[in-house]
Amino acid sequence: MKDQPEQRATRGERLAAAYRQVRQETERRAAPLSPEDQLVQSMPDASPIKWHRAHTTWFFEQFLLVPHVKGYRPFHPDFAFLFNSYYVTAGPRHARTHRGVVTRPSVDEVDAYRAHVDAAMEKALATADTTLLETLAPLIEIGTNHEQQHQELMLTDILHAFSLNPLCPAYDPAWQRPRSTRGGGDFMLAEGIHTVGHNGNGYAFDNEGPAHRTLVGPVRIARDLVTNREWLAFMQDGGYTTATLWLMDGFAVATNEEWQAPGHWREIDGEWHTMTLGGLRSLDLDAPVCHISYYEADAFARWSGKHLPTETEWEVAARSGQLNDAFGIVWQWTRSAYSPYPGYRAVEGALGEYNGKFMVNQLVLRGSSLATPEGHSRVTYRNFFYPHHRWQFMGLRLADYRS
Amino acid sequence: MKDQPEQRATRGERLAAAYRQVRQETERRAAPLSPEDQLVQSMPDASPIKWHRAHTTWFFEQFLLVPHVKGYRPFHPDFAFLFNSYYVTAGPRHARTHRGVVTRPSVDEVDAYRAHVDAAMEKALATADTTLLETLAPLIEIGTNHEQQHQELMLTDILHAFSLNPLCPAYDPAWQRPRSTRGGGDFMLAEGIHTVGHNGNGYAFDNEGPAHRTLVGPVRIARDLVTNREWLAFMQDGGYTTATLWLMDGFAVATNEEWQAPGHWREIDGEWHTMTLGGLRSLDLDAPVCHISYYEADAFARWSGKHLPTETEWEVAARSGQLNDAFGIVWQWTRSAYSPYPGYRAVEGALGEYNGKFMVNQLVLRGSSLATPEGHSRVTYRNFFYPHHRWQFMGLRLADYRS
Amino acid sequence: MKDQPEQRATRGERLAAAYRQVRQETERRAAPLSPEDQLVQSMPDASPIKWHRAHTTWFFEQFLLVPHVKGYRPFHPDFAFLFNSYYVTAGPRHARTHRGVVTRPSVDEVDAYRAHVDAAMEKALATADTTLLETLAPLIEIGTNHEQQHQELMLTDILHAFSLNPLCPAYDPAWQRPRSTRGGGDFMLAEGIHTVGHNGNGYAFDNEGPAHRTLVGPVRIARDLVTNREWLAFMQDGGYTTATLWLMDGFAVATNEEWQAPGHWREIDGEWHTMTLGGLRSLDLDAPVCHISYYEADAFARWSGKHLPTETEWEVAARSGQLNDAFGIVWQWTRSAYSPYPGYRAVEGALGEYNGKFMVNQLVLRGSSLATPEGHSRVTYRNFFYPHHRWQFMGLRLADYRS
Amino acid sequence: MKDQPEQRATRGERLAAAYRQVRQETERRAAPLSPEDQLVQSMPDASPIKWHRAHTTWFFEQFLLVPHVKGYRPFHPDFAFLFNSYYVTAGPRHARTHRGVVTRPSVDEVDAYRAHVDAAMEKALATADTTLLETLAPLIEIGTNHEQQHQELMLTDILHAFSLNPLCPAYDPAWQRPRSTRGGGDFMLAEGIHTVGHNGNGYAFDNEGPAHRTLVGPVRIARDLVTNREWLAFMQDGGYTTATLWLMDGFAVATNEEWQAPGHWREIDGEWHTMTLGGLRSLDLDAPVCHISYYEADAFARWSGKHLPTETEWEVAARSGQLNDAFGIVWQWTRSAYSPYPGYRAVEGALGEYNGKFMVNQLVLRGSSLATPEGHSRVTYRNFFYPHHRWQFMGLRLADYRS
Repeated sequence: MKDQPEQRATRGERLAAAYRQVRQETERRAAPLSPEDQLVQSMPDASPIKWHRAHTTWFFEQFLLVPHVKGYRPFHPDFAFLFNSYYVTAGPRHARTHRGVVTRPSVDEVDAYRAHVDAAMEKALATADTTLLETLAPLIEIGTNHEQQHQELMLTDILHAFSLNPLCPAYDPAWQRPRSTRGGGDFMLAEGIHTVGHNGNGYAFDNEGPAHRTLVGPVRIARDLVTNREWLAFMQDGGYTTATLWLMDGFAVATNEEWQAPGHWREIDGEWHTMTLGGLRSLDLDAPVCHISYYEADAFARWSGKHLPTETEWEVAARSGQLNDAFGIVWQWTRSAYSPYPGYRAVEGALGEYNGKFMVNQLVLRGSSLATPEGHSRVTYRNFFYPHHRWQFMGLRLADYRS
Repeated sequence: MKDQPEQRATRGERLAAAYRQVRQETERRAAPLSPEDQLVQSMPDASPIKWHRAHTTWFFEQFLLVPHVKGYRPFHPDFAFLFNSYYVTAGPRHARTHRGVVTRPSVDEVDAYRAHVDAAMEKALATADTTLLETLAPLIEIGTNHEQQHQELMLTDILHAFSLNPLCPAYDPAWQRPRSTRGGGDFMLAEGIHTVGHNGNGYAFDNEGPAHRTLVGPVRIARDLVTNREWLAFMQDGGYTTATLWLMDGFAVATNEEWQAPGHWREIDGEWHTMTLGGLRSLDLDAPVCHISYYEADAFARWSGKHLPTETEWEVAARSGQLNDAFGIVWQWTRSAYSPYPGYRAVEGALGEYNGKFMVNQLVLRGSSLATPEGHSRVTYRNFFYPHHRWQFMGLRLADYRS
Repeated sequence: MKDQPEQRATRGERLAAAYRQVRQETERRAAPLSPEDQLVQSMPDASPIKWHRAHTTWFFEQFLLVPHVKGYRPFHPDFAFLFNSYYVTAGPRHARTHRGVVTRPSVDEVDAYRAHVDAAMEKALATADTTLLETLAPLIEIGTNHEQQHQELMLTDILHAFSLNPLCPAYDPAWQRPRSTRGGGDFMLAEGIHTVGHNGNGYAFDNEGPAHRTLVGPVRIARDLVTNREWLAFMQDGGYTTATLWLMDGFAVATNEEWQAPGHWREIDGEWHTMTLGGLRSLDLDAPVCHISYYEADAFARWSGKHLPTETEWEVAARSGQLNDAFGIVWQWTRSAYSPYPGYRAVEGALGEYNGKFMVNQLVLRGSSLATPEGHSRVTYRNFFYPHHRWQFMGLRLADYRS
Repeated sequence: MKDQPEQRATRGERLAAAYRQVRQETERRAAPLSPEDQLVQSMPDASPIKWHRAHTTWFFEQFLLVPHVKGYRPFHPDFAFLFNSYYVTAGPRHARTHRGVVTRPSVDEVDAYRAHVDAAMEKALATADTTLLETLAPLIEIGTNHEQQHQELMLTDILHAFSLNPLCPAYDPAWQRPRSTRGGGDFMLAEGIHTVGHNGNGYAFDNEGPAHRTLVGPVRIARDLVTNREWLAFMQDGGYTTATLWLMDGFAVATNEEWQAPGHWREIDGEWHTMTLGGLRSLDLDAPVCHISYYEADAFARWSGKHLPTETEWEVAARSGQLNDAFGIVWQWTRSAYSPYPGYRAVEGALGEYNGKFMVNQLVLRGSSLATPEGHSRVTYRNFFYPHHRWQFMGLRLADYRS
């Protein structure tokens, strides 16, 4: 069968447009940041902005251009080593904890790296035949989704670095928090078998499937996110110092880290403030609480006489359309450990390392946050972090099993 | 209503007999051990035998004798501090990591402590009226079950200490491993709703409930435990050095700890041996593998193209009667994180700390081991350890989701 | 030349008597301690009493019996591994930090080990000819001196373990602190060239030589040791919290360890007590301060407007006979780093590891303590510990360079 | 007495010229470095270039402008917090380990800070009367000497960061190592009393005094520095793996850090290279060895059958004019611990923290290195580092006590 030029062109152009849009969003997010801002690695869990920009570029180079585009020449022989994150199968890589040491390549060179790969991508998509486009399409899909995940991390990582800076710099002085909804109350999920997980229509990461049937309920789910006002009540009731409210591991962390409030909060002359993308701001009591760890979320739930929902409860509730602010404000901790769904098996090769090897010691968060790029808010999305982590935009909603 | 003397006597005697039996089993397990053996704490996770013997005694003193038996005088004013394990509500306590420093009280004094409490218990049960017996009965039940849990730890902790001793001492030179069964094959659990968890008939720890309905299957479960022979095949296939078989956290531990074989294994002149309660023995290829961590169990399952079962799959399978060696050889890792069952809520007071505060970062094991005391082998029992732990008698069986 | 039987007998008997006396003193010191007391290793710097008793025995076996006594059969093939301390040249050895794990051999077996080696030593000395006695004499000399060093450590190590025990056990309830002298004042050492270090007459460790000439003075040296009364004044003046009084490394340790008083001190209901070999005692204000680190001694000296003396200043002062309590109460910190004397060179072989490899990062203490065995108090003796150490019987006297 | 305008002008101009020269040298050293290069902190011991530039500026602001120049307005209210290094007396300060997090102020703002302080300094020196100049002169002297010390650190710190960068960037591609001299042999220092330490003529840091008499010799001192060729012989003779050549603490570090060669060395295809200010270069066998720790220097000396000299031996030898390359190539380890000279007492106030509080746990190096600014090479200069440090330009020469 011959190529059908118009279809090919359409397909290629559509892929190029999608690619371009994601790449531009990354640059838009990096734009307010100086070369120094782009180098800093404020803790081993965070990465430099420059590294995010280069690593997402390497991802296309490594998994698409090098194996599938004839004549492509890698930009620099050492960049595969520098900008591989954790793909053992893709070869040796620079130690994660040392990313902040790499002052060179400079921001300018990373600009050039991105331009080099973008040009090669554009050219490849403009000239590929249908067969090659079939091969490239899923790689572009995972590559752009991958880059979008890093877009969120760019904001959380720079906010963490700025939160450690005594000068409290603002990423965007004009930043405003997204509007949230307060309706109050909860609703009942009656016992029933539901299919959860991604069914394969549209893009999803491999860890969102296989879709499978599960029994959910009866349980009541809160419509609203927990707010700063509620969190202050917990604090004023001695929440952070009452051992019996806490998981033992959590209380050890809270004690060692001297936690007395959510992350990025600062008390100044008796008033609580919080570091935001807009700089240091007075605490907004009606805003959903943010930058809390699983340990804190769990202690708060226990203090409330309630629980965190499981991830399947959350998903069924979200599908029912009864959750306020399910998306776009804060990721919501669930009490589900991050485990493979029944029958989950990672794909072969380096991309099989994408999600599977993290499936222990972490907990699932659902929804999405104010930093989540468009298109990543879906009911099956499984975000995951360690229970002591709190530098992401993380909050909670409650569940109640009492009848 | 008046006391009915005969019933009371019967009730009291039955309780006393149950109490006595458990207390004697503790002493039977400690009998082969010298005063030095009873002091050693070979790692922070383990406790001295003497401490186990005193702590289980304190448990009765603290939760039964002091609050409920008039005129009881504690044996020693400092023992509550020394022998409280982790009950924040029961007052301050000695640091867990320093238990091995407490050379005094001596073994003889701990003998006297046990005798003092035993005498008080016998007297209390011989003289209590029905109302008091009603109060004491559940405390004796939890106290004896608690002591039985420590009986298992006594064997695992001393084996760990002996495994670090270049002389390879034997706890019991005449010890023989329990017979295991090899039938081969697996069986199908079809999709179905099952009630799992403890229904309240007979004793169970609070974390075994509430009983609740859940959807299980379809999945195939192996009838047999994985053996040393199979484990050697994994080792010979490079299992311990192939990063892609491992969870990332697990591979980091395996690398740091230089794991090359299960715990307590030693290679001598090219032959594998293993430290057992009977001392150093040649490896028995047909025996179920033991002393493996969750990380290793998970890597083995991935290497096998299979999975570990969830704890509910295990429970439903065990209820079906189709598992060989479900009990009495090795605890079996499941891939279920240790979380509260829906609606679980710890009881008020110090005993509420018994299980609930550990419900994060650990994985569930099911079944029981060769060290488990009689009566603790039941299908709802939830044992739990951190994924890097391997000093317990831990093994695995496999599950398969492939159709 | 023929053997001269009588001389030989005298020589052999004298050596045997010296040997016997030291060995008995070790047993005398261990006598009050139970098997558990003899096992505990309360920190990596300390060792179990049982280990001290076996290690000093191994020293004779390793360096005297095995190489020089025909037909000697080592007591146990694994004891060389278990009881070698740090002699790389003498073969592999058990990790220092794990000495407390070795519950077996038991105290009884260590008794038997000591008896076995003692019998072999007695026999060897009773039958050796003059030539062999010439060979054995220096080995007995270093072996007994070595064992005496461990005798001191036995007391400091068990006191440390007891100080961590909430029950505050007493090593010897009848123990009384040695009398100290208070004369007051200081005296001048005018500038002059002195020979310091050991000149080879009588026994000395290799690090005490070579004797060499050095220029000392002018400096004033305090006649008395610093007392608890003076130390309390330092404490009450904020000594432990005034950063500018401290060496930077020292203040970091004091802060991390939360030091607020010397080691083994405890404040009970507003009164200071201190753990001694006699158990917990009220603080004796006139006693020399004990259990202070170099960092504390240095801060005290700075607070006093004075200095610690150098080790050569101390030695010249001690030779002049003007020091009160130079010996027998507390070792006295000097501000001299533990370095080799000019031209010092360790002997060849394993015994060359005795002192030389520690000559960095430690500071010299001079004099001797209440735990020092007879014969170890001499003006050239160089004791040495890390600047944060304080579990030995350590105190200070001051020097003053102001004219 | 009236001001004498001309003298004043001369004095002020001379001070301004000295100040300007030092400040310009700092900028000259920073010139090749990008904003990212100026941010990186590659280990806690190192500091960002931007921080060095700001800290040295703060030093003048804190100790000269604020207390002594009327009307001076600090550049930024938070800079005292950000750029105080370790002066407790000067107020709270940012954690040393977090200097690399401070992306803002930017390099441009630090430029402006330096310009602001420079302008204020110029103006103050142009207008001060004689009395004020008397006050300012010693502060300018210590401030410029302080800044020169940081100039050396700028080069060692950026070289360390570049050495961790897989791309091996060059600070100055045209850099050439300074010429060294090879004459061979050694010379005798006969026993004699010498005055060592600074006598107060010309500038010196407080730790260089008081000058005092000491007895030196007899000892032979090598004329030349140890070379890479000699170091390779040590390596090929198993120097890095022979425990008996090492101090115990040193061998532990060497093992943990997996040292197999001096710092910044890399073996590529069997050939040794070393990271220099000119980038990665083939090893020059005739060059003095560089980037070795005290532990390595000491092991090499022992392997050679010789010793490191003491600092007073070095000083007397240097005064005699018989040392080749005493200055300008590598600092030379001595075996002298960094201690106060007899009668040394730090000045009152914050500047008293300059040197005194480091006088423990470090060893003295003498001479100067290729990175040492002009005017800092003098026979009394006492440099000091911890024995495991090797990122400075550090080497050794040998001493011999054998007659």
